[in-house]
Amino acid sequence: MQDALIINTRDLDFQLFEVLEAETLTRRTRHADHSRETFRAALDTAHAVAVEKFAPHNRLLDEHEPQFDGQRVTLPVEVKDALDALRATGFLAAGKDYEWGGMQLPSLIAFACLSLFKSANIATSSYAMLTTANANVIERFGSEAQKRKYLQALFEGRAFGTMALTEPQAGSSLSDLVTTATPNEDGTYSIRGNKIFISAGDHELSENIVHLVLARIPGGPPGVKGISLFTVPKYHVNDDGSLGARNDVALAGLIHKMGWRGTTSTMLSFGEHGTCIGELVGETHHGLATMFHMMNEARIGVGLGAVMLGYRGYLASLDYARERPQGRRPDNKNPLDPQLPLIEHADVRRMLLAQKAYVEGAYALCLYAARLVDEQHTGESDAARAEAGLLLDLLTPVVKSWPSQWCLEANSLAIQIHGGYGYTREYPVEQFYRDNRLNMIHEGTHGIQAIDLLGRKVVMKQGAALALFGHAIRRTIDAALTHERLHAHANALGDAWRDLNATVEALLPTLAQETERALANANAFLEAFGHIVIAWTWLRQAVVASAALADARSEAETDADFYRGKLHACQWFFRWELPRVALMLATLRSLDDTTLGMAPQWF
Amino acid sequence: MQDALIINTRDLDFQLFEVLEAETLTRRTRHADHSRETFRAALDTAHAVAVEKFAPHNRLLDEHEPQFDGQRVTLPVEVKDALDALRATGFLAAGKDYEWGGMQLPSLIAFACLSLFKSANIATSSYAMLTTANANVIERFGSEAQKRKYLQALFEGRAFGTMALTEPQAGSSLSDLVTTATPNEDGTYSIRGNKIFISAGDHELSENIVHLVLARIPGGPPGVKGISLFTVPKYHVNDDGSLGARNDVALAGLIHKMGWRGTTSTMLSFGEHGTCIGELVGETHHGLATMFHMMNEARIGVGLGAVMLGYRGYLASLDYARERPQGRRPDNKNPLDPQLPLIEHADVRRMLLAQKAYVEGAYALCLYAARLVDEQHTGESDAARAEAGLLLDLLTPVVKSWPSQWCLEANSLAIQIHGGYGYTREYPVEQFYRDNRLNMIHEGTHGIQAIDLLGRKVVMKQGAALALFGHAIRRTIDAALTHERLHAHANALGDAWRDLNATVEALLPTLAQETERALANANAFLEAFGHIVIAWTWLRQAVVASAALADARSEAETDADFYRGKLHACQWFFRWELPRVALMLATLRSLDDTTLGMAPQWF
Repeated sequence: MQDALIINTRDLDFQLFEVLEAETLTRRTRHADHSRETFRAALDTAHAVAVEKFAPHNRLLDEHEPQFDGQRVTLPVEVKDALDALRATGFLAAGKDYEWGGMQLPSLIAFACLSLFKSANIATSSYAMLTTANANVIERFGSEAQKRKYLQALFEGRAFGTMALTEPQAGSSLSDLVTTATPNEDGTYSIRGNKIFISAGDHELSENIVHLVLARIPGGPPGVKGISLFTVPKYHVNDDGSLGARNDVALAGLIHKMGWRGTTSTMLSFGEHGTCIGELVGETHHGLATMFHMMNEARIGVGLGAVMLGYRGYLASLDYARERPQGRRPDNKNPLDPQLPLIEHADVRRMLLAQKAYVEGAYALCLYAARLVDEQHTGESDAARAEAGLLLDLLTPVVKSWPSQWCLEANSLAIQIHGGYGYTREYPVEQFYRDNRLNMIHEGTHGIQAIDLLGRKVVMKQGAALALFGHAIRRTIDAALTHERLHAHANALGDAWRDLNATVEALLPTLAQETERALANANAFLEAFGHIVIAWTWLRQAVVASAALADARSEAETDADFYRGKLHACQWFFRWELPRVALMLATLRSLDDTTLGMAPQWF
Repeated sequence: MQDALIINTRDLDFQLFEVLEAETLTRRTRHADHSRETFRAALDTAHAVAVEKFAPHNRLLDEHEPQFDGQRVTLPVEVKDALDALRATGFLAAGKDYEWGGMQLPSLIAFACLSLFKSANIATSSYAMLTTANANVIERFGSEAQKRKYLQALFEGRAFGTMALTEPQAGSSLSDLVTTATPNEDGTYSIRGNKIFISAGDHELSENIVHLVLARIPGGPPGVKGISLFTVPKYHVNDDGSLGARNDVALAGLIHKMGWRGTTSTMLSFGEHGTCIGELVGETHHGLATMFHMMNEARIGVGLGAVMLGYRGYLASLDYARERPQGRRPDNKNPLDPQLPLIEHADVRRMLLAQKAYVEGAYALCLYAARLVDEQHTGESDAARAEAGLLLDLLTPVVKSWPSQWCLEANSLAIQIHGGYGYTREYPVEQFYRDNRLNMIHEGTHGIQAIDLLGRKVVMKQGAALALFGHAIRRTIDAALTHERLHAHANALGDAWRDLNATVEALLPTLAQETERALANANAFLEAFGHIVIAWTWLRQAVVASAALADARSEAETDADFYRGKLHACQWFFRWELPRVALMLATLRSLDDTTLGMAPQWF
């Protein structure tokens, strides 16, 4: 059992510096003090903290989930120790301005650092991730007074953050939430209502907790157009930043999950005694749009979490497959020959290759999304910044959903390689599988991502985002066509992309006239589109690997092995996964109505 | 939360009496005392015991897994209560001779009864299932003395049984097991060695435990040809059936699993003090073949367990989808309209339909396998009995593996329909998902089933089993062609079957000359073949449903709804699942060597 394998650092280097050319970001004014060396120093520090402080208690935290005695929530002391190390090393503000005490790192590098904490311990790292996402909303939409009150505390980790959207009766249907925010004479609001599944909603890990709460101001419009956003601290904050009395936010109970047990999942009761005070963030009735700023970031974070759980399982099973002797080749019947390591068996290699293709392909996508965030913020022209935003909008449903589905499948394969041992709690992989199953649900289920993609993102601005992504694909195909060994893949990706566009064309009239019918198979569209996106990330990687192999400087044999592995994983994805896209698209174009046609009473 | 929905009894009726024509079995001498009424009485009793005694402690047992204090294993008292009810109602010997106190039920009915216990509580029912399988081996291969000593006790549940194959260093590679059995002068053997993952290997649920142990007699041939089978009781049994002293079998420890926690998984130490006595069952060095008699039955049992976990999750999520209001249709933006039940959403209906297609299709397969066991034992001619045995051999890898993969997927969909609630331990579905993940591993992993199917079953006796199954498919296609609404499905199944046969033909030379290469993608063959088999079970069901709908007697509207649901689930499988077969077969025919070509150092 190997517990500290949280990343293949050669792959991280490849993704950041060879594929995404992170070093070019140092040319931008905001990051001018940085260099490849400072990036690497940040990554090395994150790696050390992750391995030394986050990874060691990953199983312990699963076995000792948070306890609530009616007064306080108790967590193993190791969680606070790890988060203290995170505070001390400044990673809560890794991408923030120097003036806030931040490191002013590009999003790409900050995100890569975050990936290491997630890999080491998804539950403990969630407290940090939610805090950063929360702070980003206040930084962008909060008043100056709100920033003074909360921001520094969040960046330093004195306060942690949450997002409090979901209510028991409404679930994914935010339109139906009923928590109220009644205006007080001093400009504050009295909040009253119940929220459920609020991650990190209570704990003693920080001095304070800042909830971002969606609620309705009475008299506003019904539905999503009447929702506003509020900061609701656990302890009131005085103007000088010191903590005041307890606010009227009560923990009604902890939810016990299948996995991801170390992050408290809470039922929160706001204003049970009528004295819960919140402050409006941004404009009245625009709360959903404001919150979606946080939500989109959280969705990319979910995708990254799914990738890292998959990555961790992949590395664990690779290690196991190299060490564990088991059986012989199928054409060797001599029981006196020694057993071979598992990795020598074709079916085990298939399961390793599939995991590699899923997790490294999805990792490439998540890091690309982080790179787009940089383009959006520091891109060299208005047009470049706007384009990055469009691409990010289009890809977010895929970044959220594809890793949640396929890196979970990777975790299942990691268990399978371990055989009976993999199913036991004595080995780490079963926990990754349990932890990862949440990712298809939180921050918008798979079904919601599918409707977002096909019903909104693909058609927005007359398909501008889709066209833009088409250019990116075209550039990669052109580059691939200069490498003979990539011709077949380049053509296959081109065919799949044309096929997808033809499908969108075919669906457009139905989307306009029979929305329900056109969206009934949105899930298949999400899967087909997702596979094309991942095939693209693989072709991008393959172009870099192929060029490196052709380059005399890369002749060090271990480096050549690394690049050959990349080419081979790309080949596996193109031969065994991409072909399924054509099937899904054909069924979509046929407007198959099997699901819609199934009457509820026929079940 | 609904905990007692263990089966759709209308479906059970349909499968047994309409599709598999169970009543015709009463024409056979062995079952001449039986009738549809006695079958139903047995099923009703099993259903009542399952609901009243097995289902209520399913979650409790998960939360209170077996404890070992170094002396004894403790389980919640409800487990023994449930098994006592099983003993009292005689289900441990449901299929056995009257002279043994059995009910002489056909395997099909006994198996259907077992399915209800499995659905209600997979962990508790395992003690019973292993006991029946163990008794079957002793009944068939044991000496008269062994039968006297053990059989009655096993049938009455005074003793429970195990199968002790796996060793820590050998895993799936039985060829490498090293437990020894040294002959004693009195004809017994001294057993020495360690076994791991022995389900039900220790407990206090029965007076005695009879282990069936694979071990080597020193001086025998190496590999699988030197393995013999032994009975090793926990307590010695005197000739009069009374219990003697403790045998030298010690529990070295319990294994802690992700799910299926209520069945003890044990590490057993045989002969630590040199005084572990076993008796040879069957012939010297033929232990593996003898054990495989039990193993094949266990494999069908694994498939059935996977189905029932899937079935249970399907029913729970169907119930939830009908009750839970959530959101509106995509083309309705009016938030003042009431929320609709989840089942009204197309994507939820997709997830229900997929579950229905997986679990009812796989249930049909498992019950068909049980029907083949009846044909094998009481078929009307030698030829019929031999044919049934061949078909069973061919289908066993599919019965074991397909439900393990796809009914697990069904459990994942059941979680997804529940949203965040599904991921919590407050709802039952997450447990089914955890429990079900074991089924791809135990009694031969997926990879082992794949090699068994392609490397052995498909080619055995010059492809006789495959040809035989082809006749069965042909008969169903011919019947389907008499129903216009089934024409497209009938033709699609015919095409898939031809495609599969062409693939086998294309692989034959490679199987003979480059076994490793031909078997490298055996997993894809298993999946493709499995999908064809399930498509066939759906077409069989659709033929019966279509005929019933056309029949004036079936006009009761609820019955018509049931049959329409069957036709629709069939359509879903043929439109959304079967098409993937052609892709897999094409890649197989290309002898794609991506996995074999991946050098271990490239990872």
